[in-house]
Amino acid sequence: MSNNKNTNVIISETELQALGKRAFKSLGLSDKDVDDLVHILVTADLFGLSTHGLSRIESYGDRLKINGINPRPNITVEQVAPAMIKVDGDNAVGPVVGMRTLEAAMEAAGQFGIAVAFARGSNHFGPISPYSLIAADKGFASIIGSNATTTIAPWGGSDARLGNSPLGFGVPNPEGQHFLLDMAMSVVARAKIRNALKRGEVIPNTWGTDAKGNPTTDPKAALDGFLLPIGGHKGYGLALMVDLFAGLLSNAGYLTHIKSWQDAPDEPQNLGHFFILIDTKRLGSSKWLSERMMDFANILTDSPPADPSKPVIVPGMIELAKLERQRKDGIEMSSETLDLLREYAGD
Amino acid sequence: MSNNKNTNVIISETELQALGKRAFKSLGLSDKDVDDLVHILVTADLFGLSTHGLSRIESYGDRLKINGINPRPNITVEQVAPAMIKVDGDNAVGPVVGMRTLEAAMEAAGQFGIAVAFARGSNHFGPISPYSLIAADKGFASIIGSNATTTIAPWGGSDARLGNSPLGFGVPNPEGQHFLLDMAMSVVARAKIRNALKRGEVIPNTWGTDAKGNPTTDPKAALDGFLLPIGGHKGYGLALMVDLFAGLLSNAGYLTHIKSWQDAPDEPQNLGHFFILIDTKRLGSSKWLSERMMDFANILTDSPPADPSKPVIVPGMIELAKLERQRKDGIEMSSETLDLLREYAGD
Repeated sequence: MSNNKNTNVIISETELQALGKRAFKSLGLSDKDVDDLVHILVTADLFGLSTHGLSRIESYGDRLKINGINPRPNITVEQVAPAMIKVDGDNAVGPVVGMRTLEAAMEAAGQFGIAVAFARGSNHFGPISPYSLIAADKGFASIIGSNATTTIAPWGGSDARLGNSPLGFGVPNPEGQHFLLDMAMSVVARAKIRNALKRGEVIPNTWGTDAKGNPTTDPKAALDGFLLPIGGHKGYGLALMVDLFAGLLSNAGYLTHIKSWQDAPDEPQNLGHFFILIDTKRLGSSKWLSERMMDFANILTDSPPADPSKPVIVPGMIELAKLERQRKDGIEMSSETLDLLREYAGD
Repeated sequence: MSNNKNTNVIISETELQALGKRAFKSLGLSDKDVDDLVHILVTADLFGLSTHGLSRIESYGDRLKINGINPRPNITVEQVAPAMIKVDGDNAVGPVVGMRTLEAAMEAAGQFGIAVAFARGSNHFGPISPYSLIAADKGFASIIGSNATTTIAPWGGSDARLGNSPLGFGVPNPEGQHFLLDMAMSVVARAKIRNALKRGEVIPNTWGTDAKGNPTTDPKAALDGFLLPIGGHKGYGLALMVDLFAGLLSNAGYLTHIKSWQDAPDEPQNLGHFFILIDTKRLGSSKWLSERMMDFANILTDSPPADPSKPVIVPGMIELAKLERQRKDGIEMSSETLDLLREYAGD
């Protein structure tokens, strides 16, 4: 990657999608897979989640070029019970496995009211909120999780044995704003500790531990150590449960069996995901649901803010507002990411 | 309640069950309902969760006597889609609604691989881990949640508008120890703040806020204020999601619509729960699952502890060990609770 100063530029959604598709097609993916992949990553960029958007072409591209990720996978979808599906991603790009799994889960949930789809043989599948959004737009509530490369020590332990596994929830409002929650189990992301180091600041001792597993206020020591989970043993428990559902039950890798895409970019990671979809249309009318969702949001946002300059918000509000604005006014992208996309696209 | 000094005594599981049943029968419940209720509460006591065990006869009893809880409910179970069930608890004692909902969900999950059951018209249903244990013993993984009386302010808000909603997960190990996680979304329970006040200690400013929503180190101010959720906005988001699934989708009350059993003991609370059950027998053999579960636990507990006196544990380990020990050696119960049970039983 270039060492030039990174600047942000505005690009329309249509243009960015077209550029993203040309870039990923150059890496040998099929048209359908490129469409799915770019849909997820551009939605991430629309949400303002740039670390999980098209900037991922850097790591995805590096691994696709050396067949660390399979550009032409044979993804299998097996219905092991009426409302239970197992997907083998054949080491495809993560969002391609994610979309195939989501689609299978939504179809079965439409039939049975609820369905679960487990995926194995996958890779980093982007953020969760784009999947939750697709589901919510079709009236499905969702619980979605993935495991991840190990960065967290067991609670009280002293080496990285579990991933900062993301867990997401979505509940649709058919005539208003969905609730979307997409969270990892660490108090903060490593990027926030890196920023503190750059600025020469100490960090709260709840963010991370040193290499021996002891909480630290030194960002340098924390970067050599492990992220701390939210609520101590509670976040540790949640991260484990996500890995049990996403990795262990799916027959994927889990915990230290997950290969690191950074240390072993040429090997399949065998990440796992789970998608639980619930068809809210079976529970009541769209009017019933919309009214309750609106009332629910109002009760929360009507709480007088402790700091008058910071009104109460609800999960997904910021991302959905940003998506709407950027769909209209264009998406803010780093010039570095656009340069890399253009390089792959051969522009 | 008596003001005498409370002491602990040991009582066998069989004796405690018999005493619990006599006590609750005196309150007008049917035999079947008493069996279910006492099963859940005694399991809580076996786990060492005494605040959620038979001690609850105090509040349940007070409300049953004045028909704030319905002793002779007509609970309805409706299959709204093949794998989706709606239960109306008719304001029964919470664990009775919980057991009926769990049973309906397990039956449908056995047929379809996964099922969800939503309950409305319920009350406090005890801890979650006893339900997760019943499910795990039959090979079901579970995600279970309930909403609760409001004790938490929205993130950045200044009045209690959401409950400290518990969320539980269970994953079975057919030949070994299940993983069970049962957690509320606050950093600590109010009891821990009360204990700090008693000892004249300050508390970390991450535990609670004062009445204006500002984080405080004064336990007195925190007790007049609100509990803080784990991970700040993350725990706030999780608590909301639990209420959306347990309260909003179930057609129960939610947020400030939930009546407080303390302020309005004579009124139905209309609490809601959700039970998602996954039949792991459809995913692989019992040998396959046991081996993976054992390996998963070993990877975690093999992490060298940061403090050598505190080995790494996994969720449910302490409770399941206590259950096994107390089944053999008897259950430690407060004499106060036993006295109250005997009073109801007319012993």
